[in-house]
Amino acid sequence: MRRLRVTSQSGNYDVLVGCGAWRGLRQFRGYSSRFILTERGLWNRWGKRFVREAGLRDAPPIFVPPGETSKSLKMVETVASQLLEHGADRRSLLVAFGGGVIGDLGGFVASTYMRGIDYVQVPTTVVAQVDSAIGGKTAVNVRAMKNLVGTFYPPRQVLADPTVLASLDERAFHSGLHEVVKHAILAGPAFFRQLEAKIPSLHPNQGRALEPILARAAQVKVEVVSRDERESGLRRVLNLGHTFGHAFEEATAYRRFLHGEAVGWGLLAVTSLAQLLGLLKPAEGEQIARLVRRVGPLPPIGDLSPERILELLPRDKKAVAGQIHWVLPERIGKVRIVKDAPLGLAANALREVQRGSRHE
Amino acid sequence: MRRLRVTSQSGNYDVLVGCGAWRGLRQFRGYSSRFILTERGLWNRWGKRFVREAGLRDAPPIFVPPGETSKSLKMVETVASQLLEHGADRRSLLVAFGGGVIGDLGGFVASTYMRGIDYVQVPTTVVAQVDSAIGGKTAVNVRAMKNLVGTFYPPRQVLADPTVLASLDERAFHSGLHEVVKHAILAGPAFFRQLEAKIPSLHPNQGRALEPILARAAQVKVEVVSRDERESGLRRVLNLGHTFGHAFEEATAYRRFLHGEAVGWGLLAVTSLAQLLGLLKPAEGEQIARLVRRVGPLPPIGDLSPERILELLPRDKKAVAGQIHWVLPERIGKVRIVKDAPLGLAANALREVQRGSRHE
Repeated sequence: MRRLRVTSQSGNYDVLVGCGAWRGLRQFRGYSSRFILTERGLWNRWGKRFVREAGLRDAPPIFVPPGETSKSLKMVETVASQLLEHGADRRSLLVAFGGGVIGDLGGFVASTYMRGIDYVQVPTTVVAQVDSAIGGKTAVNVRAMKNLVGTFYPPRQVLADPTVLASLDERAFHSGLHEVVKHAILAGPAFFRQLEAKIPSLHPNQGRALEPILARAAQVKVEVVSRDERESGLRRVLNLGHTFGHAFEEATAYRRFLHGEAVGWGLLAVTSLAQLLGLLKPAEGEQIARLVRRVGPLPPIGDLSPERILELLPRDKKAVAGQIHWVLPERIGKVRIVKDAPLGLAANALREVQRGSRHE
Repeated sequence: MRRLRVTSQSGNYDVLVGCGAWRGLRQFRGYSSRFILTERGLWNRWGKRFVREAGLRDAPPIFVPPGETSKSLKMVETVASQLLEHGADRRSLLVAFGGGVIGDLGGFVASTYMRGIDYVQVPTTVVAQVDSAIGGKTAVNVRAMKNLVGTFYPPRQVLADPTVLASLDERAFHSGLHEVVKHAILAGPAFFRQLEAKIPSLHPNQGRALEPILARAAQVKVEVVSRDERESGLRRVLNLGHTFGHAFEEATAYRRFLHGEAVGWGLLAVTSLAQLLGLLKPAEGEQIARLVRRVGPLPPIGDLSPERILELLPRDKKAVAGQIHWVLPERIGKVRIVKDAPLGLAANALREVQRGSRHE
């Protein structure tokens, strides 16, 4: 079990990563009532075990349908109404038990229900465990724009037990590993090499083996958000691979890629762009690209129009007044924010990666 | 012009009360874009003058329909979508130009659009100028529950120009004065006597005469929220008259009373309750009741079932786990929070006030 500490303007909190982490919830007593936001499939598989370990037998589950469409203001209304019907008041606790959708939605509900109640994140996917459940960013989607409406609202604790990953299918699991690769690029050679060595043996039902990898990846997020909670600067490095990634997702109407898969392609594309700009040595670029490709197969991108992808880039809301803040690897362990990368070079980088996609 | 200063965890800000206050917006430059949330009737009457004085000719207005139904998550979605279409990013400014609905909705949108943008409150009703626009509480309604979903999110400035009250009808104006009376009870004998003396001469189109009264009333709110931003204790005193008031509004499906009118009745009822509990001397109780009644006529409450009103009391969300936190006047200038007032006495206090209602 690893215990990491996030420092935050609105209160510090722990991130527990490891088998048995759910027991951390037992200390969350003294609330007027407790509720679990989750989805039914996950609950059928893990609910009994979760309430037993977490000591949450008194906490009713509130179910939302699986999938991105639940990240909506309409669903916020539904969940808030259910909380009210169950008698939740401002001293109630909400436990978000699920992946990124449950975490983002649950965090947003917690941050706004009666102007804010306590909540605990219990992430159940790789991406959520190493990334989205940490840092207090909550959000829902509004029509064309993902995460347009949200809050900064840190949880009281994050409890990531890798055991629960056993019910992920292989594709979802490997998709999440792309975020782990992203964190390894940010972390530096030691973790990067550890990941290179372990990648072949990582499997969703090997909780014990996953624990040190997930904990180290989570630590990257913990360190960044502790230094920059509000994304005024440093936190942008976490967007590594995401600028292209979001465009890939949007160009395919969020249907072709799992989020991590789009990030995988995004990592390849910015690695290529960094090389074209002369920022990154070819040998290290190749090392990054090799690790991304070893994580697992990615859906094709060869058919996507580079012009369309470039058009979609500035819509990334991290961009201020249309500018693109590229996060580019300089070497393993160091990225640079570049605001004036020529779009033509970005197009070339993209085409290069697309050629690789067609040759597979 | 009076300048009041609110201290807040997330940044201090000024409240300007007086004729010409809108000019305060001229200092709000350096934003990537600026937008005005308002409603069309108000805009037709004041829009030109407002943009001229505030130096906001570049800022497009975004209109929402008048009335409480606009305080919804659906409207949050609509407004956020329009902001996005107009190119608003996280360095944009939102100006909420309107009454309580616009202020609460605009504040909530500002607090959640791209996880929070700056906003300025420009209140245009009495209640908004002395109360709701100050303090950073934002909210929308969810089905049966008013203000169920919201945030604590202070504005960058509050600009209250009484000139704009000239377009209020008499009823809306007098309704708002009940909140001024509430603040006078909290403030003490000096302001209370000032209000007693001025009440006959207060008129919506007498901006200069209103200025000192509104500024003094706003100061009460400023002082309370500066000491207790999150309503953990002191801020509860602002609920004076609101526990009964909310029940009156809910029992009549928010159709019979303007908010301030319900508060007026609520002030009479808790004044009666405080006397029945022996907390308040009859002479001071009578002094309070007389001022409330002098503000203007109130819609009748004689027909409301006391049992129904009592049932609706604990639904006030300020109550934790069902308890009622009564805010009761002990004397003019001092209130006490009482948690264990016998419901029977509350019923008696209510019946007494209802008898007064029938005799009018």
